[in-house]
Amino acid sequence: MGKYYLGIDLGGTDIKTGVIDEDYNIVAKHVIPTQANRSVDEVVADMAAAGKTAVKMAGLSESDIVYVGVGVPGAVNSKTDVVLLAPNLPGWRKIDFIPIFQKYWDIPVFLGNDADAAALAEVYAGAAKGYDYAIVLTLGTGVGGGLVFDKKLFTGCGLGTELGHIIIVTGGEKCGCGSHGCLEAYASVTALLREAKRFMKEYPDSLLHELCGGDTSQISGRIIFDAAKQDDVAAKAIVADYVKYLGTGIASLCNALRPEVVILGGGVCNAGEPLFGPLDKIVESEIFSTDDGGLPPILRAELGNDAGIIGAALFGVGR
Amino acid sequence: MGKYYLGIDLGGTDIKTGVIDEDYNIVAKHVIPTQANRSVDEVVADMAAAGKTAVKMAGLSESDIVYVGVGVPGAVNSKTDVVLLAPNLPGWRKIDFIPIFQKYWDIPVFLGNDADAAALAEVYAGAAKGYDYAIVLTLGTGVGGGLVFDKKLFTGCGLGTELGHIIIVTGGEKCGCGSHGCLEAYASVTALLREAKRFMKEYPDSLLHELCGGDTSQISGRIIFDAAKQDDVAAKAIVADYVKYLGTGIASLCNALRPEVVILGGGVCNAGEPLFGPLDKIVESEIFSTDDGGLPPILRAELGNDAGIIGAALFGVGR
Repeated sequence: MGKYYLGIDLGGTDIKTGVIDEDYNIVAKHVIPTQANRSVDEVVADMAAAGKTAVKMAGLSESDIVYVGVGVPGAVNSKTDVVLLAPNLPGWRKIDFIPIFQKYWDIPVFLGNDADAAALAEVYAGAAKGYDYAIVLTLGTGVGGGLVFDKKLFTGCGLGTELGHIIIVTGGEKCGCGSHGCLEAYASVTALLREAKRFMKEYPDSLLHELCGGDTSQISGRIIFDAAKQDDVAAKAIVADYVKYLGTGIASLCNALRPEVVILGGGVCNAGEPLFGPLDKIVESEIFSTDDGGLPPILRAELGNDAGIIGAALFGVGR
Repeated sequence: MGKYYLGIDLGGTDIKTGVIDEDYNIVAKHVIPTQANRSVDEVVADMAAAGKTAVKMAGLSESDIVYVGVGVPGAVNSKTDVVLLAPNLPGWRKIDFIPIFQKYWDIPVFLGNDADAAALAEVYAGAAKGYDYAIVLTLGTGVGGGLVFDKKLFTGCGLGTELGHIIIVTGGEKCGCGSHGCLEAYASVTALLREAKRFMKEYPDSLLHELCGGDTSQISGRIIFDAAKQDDVAAKAIVADYVKYLGTGIASLCNALRPEVVILGGGVCNAGEPLFGPLDKIVESEIFSTDDGGLPPILRAELGNDAGIIGAALFGVGR
């Protein structure tokens, strides 16, 4: 019998747990609501219980699990295994996670950031399979990012990277992190929708209003790309701006880090070619490349919502 | 008797060679002009000859040297040891350096980029001593940068990093690399002087004109900082802008890479507190930090022109 690992993807809404086999397949999955307003201890107890349920669902016993990997939506000190801060989980500040978890399940535990988990998953089992050096960006409410170098997670001096917070516009848009002009302030879905609302005010005749049913708050990435496909001027301008900033951020990261491949995840990537086509052009024009390479392919993430579980289950690799 | 290493710092103007002992002291140094218009083969022959002279000057024989390390002012593929391109050395394009050098001196050779050499030197023997994770930026004609992580040089997938080409102003100043808005286009000495000239046109009464003897082409970093000290409005604005962009670039790099320390080198750092004081403030305001750290000290490089020799002699460390 092969080896099995348990991955837990802790989110503000759900706790996703899954048993992974040696080939990175999810053999059983169990998801429960986080109920983030509870105490840390209660949430952790439920994480352990949900994980054990997934193990049973897989027809395995707890002793079949080599270790548990946990991805947290926040900053983790990878040297001390302390959760420094998880913005969407009230009370999660300087939490020494592993001892709490082990009260409920006495098993080796590896802790990490959820975007780092997604990056590892894409490299071992997803779109970046076969590459050793990858940047993985997830475009959502924020911009999460993970760096994998030489097939290992890169976390700087232990605080984890914050790729969504490279600064692409000096003195630009205020970012949630307190800085200005961060990639996240231009390339997150939040930023895309913010800009869409600005444009909709300027373009009262835009198709976007009709597609929103007259309610600006209903605007979405899908609506914007749909309207752009129908040649709506405002929508095309919104997409062009979004791609310009995202592409510039990717070029900047590539210049600093020289990955072999860049992977993009998040719902906005469903736009497909109308996003990736122009993006390739911007990155190519703004990157510092040499004849010998330096222009990595930009690919769409493959694992979707499962990346967090699979990647968490990989946190123990090489450690 | 201890071990000795030979470092060669190849520049557009000089070939600097030095014998380094195990404590990273230069025990003998020999510098000759590059005469960069000669053939690659002639330059390399001179590099080997100059290195052998340095060995003699140190009272050593060639067999006392463990290896030769060579820092090149350009892009080096660290996996193939090919010099891809050295902008200030005509003809240095896709040069398979090591076999050429070994025609003149049969000894193990390690090749790397000169900014990477400076970074290694500062970590092992200079301002970043005691730190494992450092970003070292050299502010000169361009902005060179090196990343040392876990006391080892970081070169991405092998092409070397280009930290001077992170993009801090989307769609900004045209950069020599072909991109726009790169850190180098704002934080190099070239950029500082470009901005100074712009300001001098706008401020015909500025003290800067007097300090230049009426000749704008004589403007220098020293003159700008001198005038700022004397409360010249134009000079203070030039410095404030320079610091804003440099600080933003440093904050951006720190967010992406989370170093323990940032080291700045290059003549402009002679300005001291009037540069470093405001710079600390900008970086602190623009960085993504947590209570647990994330705001690294910004220190001045200590090794000056010797960094290239010492660092080249360190290229073999851990390889």
